[in-house]
Amino acid sequence: MNKYVVGVDLGGTKISTALADFEGNVLSQSIIPTNAHEGEERVLERIIKSIQSVMSEGDATLEDIKAIGIGSPGPLDSKKGIIITTPNLPFNNFNLVKPLKEKFNVPVFLDNDANVAAIGEYMLGAGKGKKNMVYFTVSTGVGGGAIVDGNICRGNTSNALEIGHTTVSPFGPRCNCGNIGCLEALSSGTAIGKRGQEAVNSKVETSLKKYDKVTSYEVFKEAANGDEVAKDIIDNALTFLGIGIANAISIFDPEMIVIGGGVSKAGDIVFEKVREVVKKRCFKAMAESCQIVPAGLGTDAGVVGAVALALLELDK
Amino acid sequence: MNKYVVGVDLGGTKISTALADFEGNVLSQSIIPTNAHEGEERVLERIIKSIQSVMSEGDATLEDIKAIGIGSPGPLDSKKGIIITTPNLPFNNFNLVKPLKEKFNVPVFLDNDANVAAIGEYMLGAGKGKKNMVYFTVSTGVGGGAIVDGNICRGNTSNALEIGHTTVSPFGPRCNCGNIGCLEALSSGTAIGKRGQEAVNSKVETSLKKYDKVTSYEVFKEAANGDEVAKDIIDNALTFLGIGIANAISIFDPEMIVIGGGVSKAGDIVFEKVREVVKKRCFKAMAESCQIVPAGLGTDAGVVGAVALALLELDK
Repeated sequence: MNKYVVGVDLGGTKISTALADFEGNVLSQSIIPTNAHEGEERVLERIIKSIQSVMSEGDATLEDIKAIGIGSPGPLDSKKGIIITTPNLPFNNFNLVKPLKEKFNVPVFLDNDANVAAIGEYMLGAGKGKKNMVYFTVSTGVGGGAIVDGNICRGNTSNALEIGHTTVSPFGPRCNCGNIGCLEALSSGTAIGKRGQEAVNSKVETSLKKYDKVTSYEVFKEAANGDEVAKDIIDNALTFLGIGIANAISIFDPEMIVIGGGVSKAGDIVFEKVREVVKKRCFKAMAESCQIVPAGLGTDAGVVGAVALALLELDK
Repeated sequence: MNKYVVGVDLGGTKISTALADFEGNVLSQSIIPTNAHEGEERVLERIIKSIQSVMSEGDATLEDIKAIGIGSPGPLDSKKGIIITTPNLPFNNFNLVKPLKEKFNVPVFLDNDANVAAIGEYMLGAGKGKKNMVYFTVSTGVGGGAIVDGNICRGNTSNALEIGHTTVSPFGPRCNCGNIGCLEALSSGTAIGKRGQEAVNSKVETSLKKYDKVTSYEVFKEAANGDEVAKDIIDNALTFLGIGIANAISIFDPEMIVIGGGVSKAGDIVFEKVREVVKKRCFKAMAESCQIVPAGLGTDAGVVGAVALALLELDK
């Protein structure tokens, strides 16, 4: 009898599934299209099929599987195993855990993307062994997950670590959520692109004007080329990211901050600025005892995180 | 054989000690002066004496005592049982837990004031039974403690929930900690008094000018009497307190926020403003599922909290 877990990364376009051992080593993997338009029952069937496929590919029987972890976009109810609603999936107050539990007769755990990524970094990535760790993902939006004393902080309604929607500038720009001055409205890739586009539409001189469409990618690129307007936009966004991260350090007193997501890929410029702001805004002892590092998991972070979720919950 | 715990609230002026049963009912209590000027060994002796005194008053033998909880001003190292330094106590990198453990031969737990107050509210006060709860104390400073899944969030260096030093206004006033725009620099009783004094020293017309010295008490009083300047000061401070609390809700997704400390005593004006800001700045589902209430423990909160610390740790 072997000891394996299955991780499922449920996305709007693809379902990525992996069979892994207790050390998180992936033994077999499957990627199939979600076909979200086919409705919830058909997507559920495809999830089941993908699990059966990685099991058979890895020569695993039902007895070998100890747990299944699933990462999904939220909002969802982790305790009840229900996906409440998501923009790109057909599920609507749908209990995803129950049918899988019945089918495979093992514990099934569901959590949102950001928590699963945080658990992945904690169990198998950059934060391995750090009992107190906060994960930030900075891309289209800003999200996060926190490991407190070796456990994921889920909160009362499974919505903890909506850190992108904490206020860091009380009179700041309007966020999509309705609030003003949210971290996400100031530091996300979307916010950086928006500031770049505003510059293009204004009278200022900037090399950004040579592009038809400006996203955060072009702003980072022109900032690196020395364009002052682009540099200001990046500096401003990263200063607020630094404030959000400094606040997380003051609140969680973690051993490590892990930053993932598209914006973190810009590299040193991000990490240097964030560390500079943290140094200024946190208590010295806390700032010095907390490392700020890039995410360790690569493109497979979603499915590896789902594997890690299964391992974390089994560990309890 | 009875089952009791002892709680010790160590303060700069007095040591308050209580013997309590497992439901937290106080059976005997002692309050003696700290006499901090006599040095660490003498203060330690007085702590021991106060524990012996509540035991003998409550007819408890050494065998009856299951644990001792101690609340102290920080910074301290909860894991190691060391008080690192405090402004009003003689202890300096002093292990307070070890000698008490040896003397009484029971587990001894040390935590900082704010965490002990949070644990007290969770175990025996307003937050009884709420597995996810954040406690704010707003008085001279702003501090806090968080209960995450039934456990206190201490962080890596025992400094978690330095929530008074999160940035809520990036270009805000200078805080005593060195940072600018800290919650404490905007919402503490000290900050409110300072804004009042600034108004007195300025050219504006305000009824605050009739006082020789303005503290937050006078500002709340004149605001209640309808003075526009005082009302503005209070509204501004409570708006930022609301932002700090909204951020805590977005981060912890708690069932309850408990507010204690001198400023919370002003009552409805505080809670109504905070709830208004939270409604504006948090996701609807999270705001609606989180109660915001005053602290339930009274003047004995310190020693009852220390009792609760012993009970929480015994429970593990």
